[in-house]
Amino acid sequence: MFLQTANKLCWFLRLTTMPARLPIKRENPSRAYVCEVIRERIGQGIYHAGDKVSSVRELSQQLNVSIACVLDAYRSLETEGVLLGQPQSGFYVQLAATRQLTATALTKPERRPIECQSDGIVRSVLHDVQSPGMIQLATAVPDPKVLPVHVIGRTMTSLSRDRTEEAASYINVPGQRELREQIARRMLAASVAVSPDEIVITTGASEAINLCLRAVCKPGDIIAVESPTYYAMLIAAQSLGLRVVEVNTNVKEGMDCASLETVLDEYPIKAVVMTSNFSNPLGSLMPDEQKSKLVRLLADRKVSLIEDDVYGELSYTDARPIAAKAYDRQGNVLYCSSFSKTLAPGFRIGWTIPGIYQNQVELLKFATSLAAPSLQQLAIADFLAFQRYSHYIRKAGRMYQANTSKMVQVVNETFPKGTTCLRPQGGFVVWVTMPEGYDALALYEAAYRQNISFMPGPAFSATQQYRNCLRLNAATWNPQVERAVRTLGEMARQNYRIG
Amino acid sequence: MFLQTANKLCWFLRLTTMPARLPIKRENPSRAYVCEVIRERIGQGIYHAGDKVSSVRELSQQLNVSIACVLDAYRSLETEGVLLGQPQSGFYVQLAATRQLTATALTKPERRPIECQSDGIVRSVLHDVQSPGMIQLATAVPDPKVLPVHVIGRTMTSLSRDRTEEAASYINVPGQRELREQIARRMLAASVAVSPDEIVITTGASEAINLCLRAVCKPGDIIAVESPTYYAMLIAAQSLGLRVVEVNTNVKEGMDCASLETVLDEYPIKAVVMTSNFSNPLGSLMPDEQKSKLVRLLADRKVSLIEDDVYGELSYTDARPIAAKAYDRQGNVLYCSSFSKTLAPGFRIGWTIPGIYQNQVELLKFATSLAAPSLQQLAIADFLAFQRYSHYIRKAGRMYQANTSKMVQVVNETFPKGTTCLRPQGGFVVWVTMPEGYDALALYEAAYRQNISFMPGPAFSATQQYRNCLRLNAATWNPQVERAVRTLGEMARQNYRIG
Repeated sequence: MFLQTANKLCWFLRLTTMPARLPIKRENPSRAYVCEVIRERIGQGIYHAGDKVSSVRELSQQLNVSIACVLDAYRSLETEGVLLGQPQSGFYVQLAATRQLTATALTKPERRPIECQSDGIVRSVLHDVQSPGMIQLATAVPDPKVLPVHVIGRTMTSLSRDRTEEAASYINVPGQRELREQIARRMLAASVAVSPDEIVITTGASEAINLCLRAVCKPGDIIAVESPTYYAMLIAAQSLGLRVVEVNTNVKEGMDCASLETVLDEYPIKAVVMTSNFSNPLGSLMPDEQKSKLVRLLADRKVSLIEDDVYGELSYTDARPIAAKAYDRQGNVLYCSSFSKTLAPGFRIGWTIPGIYQNQVELLKFATSLAAPSLQQLAIADFLAFQRYSHYIRKAGRMYQANTSKMVQVVNETFPKGTTCLRPQGGFVVWVTMPEGYDALALYEAAYRQNISFMPGPAFSATQQYRNCLRLNAATWNPQVERAVRTLGEMARQNYRIG
Repeated sequence: MFLQTANKLCWFLRLTTMPARLPIKRENPSRAYVCEVIRERIGQGIYHAGDKVSSVRELSQQLNVSIACVLDAYRSLETEGVLLGQPQSGFYVQLAATRQLTATALTKPERRPIECQSDGIVRSVLHDVQSPGMIQLATAVPDPKVLPVHVIGRTMTSLSRDRTEEAASYINVPGQRELREQIARRMLAASVAVSPDEIVITTGASEAINLCLRAVCKPGDIIAVESPTYYAMLIAAQSLGLRVVEVNTNVKEGMDCASLETVLDEYPIKAVVMTSNFSNPLGSLMPDEQKSKLVRLLADRKVSLIEDDVYGELSYTDARPIAAKAYDRQGNVLYCSSFSKTLAPGFRIGWTIPGIYQNQVELLKFATSLAAPSLQQLAIADFLAFQRYSHYIRKAGRMYQANTSKMVQVVNETFPKGTTCLRPQGGFVVWVTMPEGYDALALYEAAYRQNISFMPGPAFSATQQYRNCLRLNAATWNPQVERAVRTLGEMARQNYRIG
């Protein structure tokens, strides 16, 4: 009874603080305007297929329009197939509508080759997170409590005791055989069938991506990335003297094929770097047919695809999405991943399947760092062979789904009106877009003084756009994190507009 | 009594198979020729200061000249201050002579900027050593039995159990604080006084050297290296698009300052990469005054010195030689080292003190591989703080001295007449120079069929010279290794001349 009341209270609170898009034509509300708001919310992933939208009464209050007007708009959306009315329940989002509407929810980056200089923000944030007492929402590190850290820790302890000399010796490129065999088996879940001989073990996925970039490109070359994209891609490009073009990206479905085609027409792109599954920072998931189309497009143009799939295993459903590499017929896709998000980042074990660039990547791996740490290779191979990896991963996925969902809810409750915050489809990062004019950099400075850190949006763009955005790490959810997110939201509401 | 006889027998055997330089003017031996042979042997490090040279009778047999002629030559060398006669004992090498004569024992590389393509040999050898049953004399890996692998293995076992979550987490650039503090203390032994904040932890020394090269140079730039030089330097240069000039190198004292100056005059050198202490493959040790001179020279010319000091701790005496970095006043020396030769290569922990390039190196480290493995950082910091590291290192140094000495002796006994094999002054690699015309590559092919591997000389040169040379790993000495070296020597004697 108490719980029911509490639930109702929560529901009520949530509704009353429900964020609304800043009305563009608040003075002259109309049926068309209400339809536009609903379409926009679906497009930006606030509503997913099957979700119940705000009740007629709620929306009329939020938008300051009449109940009749909202009802009229809902009926019209029902006719269009966007909503479905359920008697005595409310209006629900139709699947077809989400597909159609999200397709138009594209980011709009400045589309010219940039020599990145984006390391400044990232480095200062990474420096700050090391301050004692800092609540760390900045870096995308998994929660050791969610991962089977102690199980693999035991494996490591016993291997360090029983196979001391092996753990102390070099394991030459391409890396330990047993580990490569286990990885080859895991890759089948992503519909990628490769032999262990096609796999090169690296010091994490970041080294894998760096080696692949170096194998494919030379300084001065241009690569294409999603927009926003993981900041490490921009810093890697910067450190390798590569220029970057950002490609319009669908907030739900990843890099936009049509925009990419335009970019390929305009510039001599050497490689496309992309996270097709649960991108960082958007949490987007590219549909299979789009992966297939993109791989075909790049193969036709003889442009390499460097696929970062570190979050691929952290699906919120039981189905692990397939990799773009699965569609690769010409060895044109250089697949990269790691155990940093699924087992332990401190192990520094990743891998790449570099296709036709295997020779170059192996040479570069040898030239760059000789070998990957030995004990961790032995431990992960043993863990994959004898422990219930899939069980742990599914458990982690469900936990991250719950945590990101709570994070999104609190952001929606506390951040300024008009903020959008997408529920990711996998992984554990959450992307927050405050209304235009809000300044994540100023918010960062203020938050730092309150011992809260996050990654400001400009870190994810070569041109430092997304100034009104921020990425939060939602791997861990506890009262302290919740308080921090609420504090952030309140601070954002009070101040921190540009100018 | 038996031992004495055995010793005498060994001594006798050794004498009768004592290698002699191939006489250049065998038909017309003379006093001057004998003097030249002795000077050459000192210059090439066959005889060190204090060593007894061949007896008059032995040398007369070896060179096929009269006893009177040899005696005459020895008296003449005594007058010159090269030898010192001891009544009823023999003739001994004077210290001053070794200094003077070794100064002229320079390698003579082709001195022009080369775009290296030297990975072929190295990669095929590294592939071969993984064959089952192969006797591995090819790669410079330490002997786990000599290193305190089990002591640090226990540290690792307990840390993996007690600090599981820490070991599973990222340790951000520049690396674990405690480890950097311990390294800063160790660096004092090399006369380098730096704060822990000036140290960046890397994935082994190879990553450190790569990051430093990338911080200082851009593709197309020219670097100068010793000749012969560690093949990984050449492969790093190749992978980074750098051209390489080889500098004449003294077989006992490392890179020759005068030759370097000429190279600096001729080419716009951006960085010099050098192993001042116990170079690989020569085992040479640069005298302190030469280190100081070289650092000053490069500071004046604004050319960076990248110093590789991985063998610095493995001295055969109790004194650890100082680093060239000790003379650095301008932050112009980028010091690199690791625990791969002193604790365990499979740990993949190295470090760099990049001087004025610290910012760039930290960014590159972050961009390239985010972080170094965590557990190994914790374990090494703990080991350095609480175990007798210096004791283990001194023990390892003495063991390697014994092993390399045995290796040199067997090479001198079994390889073709005219072979020179230098006793290294530290570390555990041995460089063998067969007479001109002998072919280490052909020998390699034959040895591979007998399950013996070594690293052929051309791997150590951008122009693939040193075809008559090979490097042997003498870290481990046991009957099997001894048999392998004898087999190699016999095979080399029988065949394997070029053409």
